Amino acid sequence: MPIHYGDRIYIYIDDGRDYILTVQEGKQFSTHRGNIMHDEIAGKNYGENVLTTKGNKVYLLPVGIIENIYHMRRCSQIVYPKDLGFILLMLDIREGNRVIDVGLGSGSMSAAMARLVGNTGMVYAYERREDMISLATQNLIVWKLIDRVTIQQRDIEVGFDEKEIDAIFLDVPQPWDYLKQCWDALAGGGRLGIVSPTAGQVMEVLRSLNKLPFIIIEVWENMFRQYKPDPYTFRPYDRMVAHTTYMIFARKVNDI
Amino acid sequence: MPIHYGDRIYIYIDDGRDYILTVQEGKQFSTHRGNIMHDEIAGKNYGENVLTTKGNKVYLLPVGIIENIYHMRRCSQIVYPKDLGFILLMLDIREGNRVIDVGLGSGSMSAAMARLVGNTGMVYAYERREDMISLATQNLIVWKLIDRVTIQQRDIEVGFDEKEIDAIFLDVPQPWDYLKQCWDALAGGGRLGIVSPTAGQVMEVLRSLNKLPFIIIEVWENMFRQYKPDPYTFRPYDRMVAHTTYMIFARKVNDI
Amino acid sequence: MPIHYGDRIYIYIDDGRDYILTVQEGKQFSTHRGNIMHDEIAGKNYGENVLTTKGNKVYLLPVGIIENIYHMRRCSQIVYPKDLGFILLMLDIREGNRVIDVGLGSGSMSAAMARLVGNTGMVYAYERREDMISLATQNLIVWKLIDRVTIQQRDIEVGFDEKEIDAIFLDVPQPWDYLKQCWDALAGGGRLGIVSPTAGQVMEVLRSLNKLPFIIIEVWENMFRQYKPDPYTFRPYDRMVAHTTYMIFARKVNDI
Amino acid sequence: MPIHYGDRIYIYIDDGRDYILTVQEGKQFSTHRGNIMHDEIAGKNYGENVLTTKGNKVYLLPVGIIENIYHMRRCSQIVYPKDLGFILLMLDIREGNRVIDVGLGSGSMSAAMARLVGNTGMVYAYERREDMISLATQNLIVWKLIDRVTIQQRDIEVGFDEKEIDAIFLDVPQPWDYLKQCWDALAGGGRLGIVSPTAGQVMEVLRSLNKLPFIIIEVWENMFRQYKPDPYTFRPYDRMVAHTTYMIFARKVNDI
Repeated sequence: MPIHYGDRIYIYIDDGRDYILTVQEGKQFSTHRGNIMHDEIAGKNYGENVLTTKGNKVYLLPVGIIENIYHMRRCSQIVYPKDLGFILLMLDIREGNRVIDVGLGSGSMSAAMARLVGNTGMVYAYERREDMISLATQNLIVWKLIDRVTIQQRDIEVGFDEKEIDAIFLDVPQPWDYLKQCWDALAGGGRLGIVSPTAGQVMEVLRSLNKLPFIIIEVWENMFRQYKPDPYTFRPYDRMVAHTTYMIFARKVNDI
Repeated sequence: MPIHYGDRIYIYIDDGRDYILTVQEGKQFSTHRGNIMHDEIAGKNYGENVLTTKGNKVYLLPVGIIENIYHMRRCSQIVYPKDLGFILLMLDIREGNRVIDVGLGSGSMSAAMARLVGNTGMVYAYERREDMISLATQNLIVWKLIDRVTIQQRDIEVGFDEKEIDAIFLDVPQPWDYLKQCWDALAGGGRLGIVSPTAGQVMEVLRSLNKLPFIIIEVWENMFRQYKPDPYTFRPYDRMVAHTTYMIFARKVNDI
Repeated sequence: MPIHYGDRIYIYIDDGRDYILTVQEGKQFSTHRGNIMHDEIAGKNYGENVLTTKGNKVYLLPVGIIENIYHMRRCSQIVYPKDLGFILLMLDIREGNRVIDVGLGSGSMSAAMARLVGNTGMVYAYERREDMISLATQNLIVWKLIDRVTIQQRDIEVGFDEKEIDAIFLDVPQPWDYLKQCWDALAGGGRLGIVSPTAGQVMEVLRSLNKLPFIIIEVWENMFRQYKPDPYTFRPYDRMVAHTTYMIFARKVNDI
Repeated sequence: MPIHYGDRIYIYIDDGRDYILTVQEGKQFSTHRGNIMHDEIAGKNYGENVLTTKGNKVYLLPVGIIENIYHMRRCSQIVYPKDLGFILLMLDIREGNRVIDVGLGSGSMSAAMARLVGNTGMVYAYERREDMISLATQNLIVWKLIDRVTIQQRDIEVGFDEKEIDAIFLDVPQPWDYLKQCWDALAGGGRLGIVSPTAGQVMEVLRSLNKLPFIIIEVWENMFRQYKPDPYTFRPYDRMVAHTTYMIFARKVNDI
């Protein structure tokens, strides 16, 4: 597939450095491995490569969601890919779903949800901070997903505008304060997902969940370990991420 | 949302047992916690409950992909939710994608992919065994995803019919035998995902990947740990799944 | 080394079953793999084998501490080998040390400590329950370590008799109630080790530790994963122990 | 216990920096937190503190084995405490044992073994490289354990001088080349422990172990995760050691 001016592409230099850039006529992109001429990229196909001015190979690749997350402008902690895939699956987000994302942050969770709900669904994103809304909006525009995300600036203590919501993702410092609001917005059988980094927060969430009609309450954590991709010294890398967050899931029922 | 005759629903009994059933007029569903009358379910809303003949509460819930996977008829090892969410994310599967799934098995990976590619994409599933194709077809019909999956019975040694494929998922005993075929079918920059349970298999895959123009080769494993959802004795459960599979990812380039 | 009547030995049958037995003249030991004649064992050397009456090989091996722990009579949760080795190292227990073990339980931690303190050290074990003291005493006699363990039946709320203790191991349901008593008994720079299975307990311990002159407070957990010892299908076993306990360590100082 | 000139002590500064020093008359120890006057330390008791010239508290503590390992002069990869405790337990090393350590490296495993075998046992350490022997010897002298370690400079391909050895620890790049030599040196039922960092090495070891009369072959790895010791934000630290080594254990029998 040929690359045109205006395309956002993912470039991977053979020393392991990677970037996202938008191909523009006459531009240069400088790296410590040499400069990359945009005009050499335009017209090439994905999978092909160009050379930097210092002779390093630059592979031209389509951008995916993980590349977008790692390279986006951000002003908040992101949900890591290791957690994101599992959360999307546990929340069972799919075409046509109407889902809520609190707080919006830099927009990556809303973006991941927006990909899944398709043109017939909608992501309702809530965020208190104006600067984050501004940043997330820019990101969602770049990712061409802004049409599927309805953003509201609000302290969710007053509740959500929507009802009969399929799934809610809650990433706020004190989620226990908003569980009744979530219950109100969810459809019967709807799914709630919460992330909290500390054990004390999870315990507080559980105490509050137990007072409301939620069932199938589950708490998970995961550890992802990456291996050296070398057949002759195949072993895990020396260090890894030990912890990002605990993940709590529950389903709304009418009464218990 | 009201439940009608003919709907497939997920039921959760208050002792933790769960089932999927299709609501049918006049039918009973027997469990060791008492019988459930289908006629009492019809007309109820999701989130509500009915009682078994022994007085146990039965919650009526929408079916999601994870419930489908754990309750499907199967004749092969499944890809676990802990791995599935990450694989779908790493393969960046989304609306309009054309992707390949080998081997089809009981159909759960093809189903997960089919949800993601939408009406404008297609999953091409390959499987050697006729009995598996038959079972997977039944599952995909029940899940209403069969229209998005093109199934072929074939030993993929001869290669795939498709070209310019966005992503391939390979779950076969000797994946190293089919990497050239995968390379041929993938678009430039396309993504390959492979699962192999043993270290020796991974090493063999890596040896073969290194001979072909694939870059950004990564090997991952994960460990998911579930906690007792009790605020007063919050701790991990005593035992957990230690290992399901190693996951290998790579991206096709034209040459290295 | 030849085996004599009266020796306690570890026997391993070739199907993976294992036992500890004391060789006695004229006796038989019955297993579902056939009977073992004690008289055939006497005079054999460690490393040799005898056959059961059904023809299964029985390997004759010296007993070690791990075999003793897994085969002892017990009436309480044990400290697992995966935790035990690390705790002994972190508490730096060695020849000549005077150490405290609370609660004694079935005696395995006191035994492990007693091996390390040698003839010139002493383990002071405290336990409230008489039945446990009785059981632990029997175990320590069998293991020939009773001379190095001074057992007291006491609620440790009143404190310990000893002063200038090198290390204390605390395995009780509410360790936070006894930290001052531990501080009193420890020598300057002495080491404290505490095990608690739940996150809430650890948090409570930390709150209490912070009010006393303890430094270098560390909290650890570990996950041990065992692999199939087969070179051709080398991979972790499917399931593993997910959690036994959190381990808390601290060192006493005079003031902070 | 009072500290004298000539004592090796462990000092912990209240910002988390730690050192081992030998108290000497008239000396100063400089840190970026200020200087420490040795003369102020002498006469103090363990558990007390002195101030640096900049006013930072310096706690005076006894040195333990873990502090020795982390602060020793080294010229090779160490066996980490997370592995060390488990290995010593699995090898069941105790008073009076005669054990072999290959390769000696910087001496920490021999030191750990020497503490356990007591005055009546002996550690036979083998090492090819003269510079390592020299360094390890210095370390063992400082730790006052040199009398319990018999060091030989040798390529162990020619075998060991000792027979009827209780346990052997093998930490060499190609352990599969020396398994027959280990079998020869071990007593019947004796224990063998091997560390290898890569999966391929473990597979090679297993292939070789299977050709010799070894039973109860086990392969382990572990992951230790440390938590923030703060009751209000109790959670694992962000990052951790992912992998140090696989650990292989086996017991010698006469024949299989």
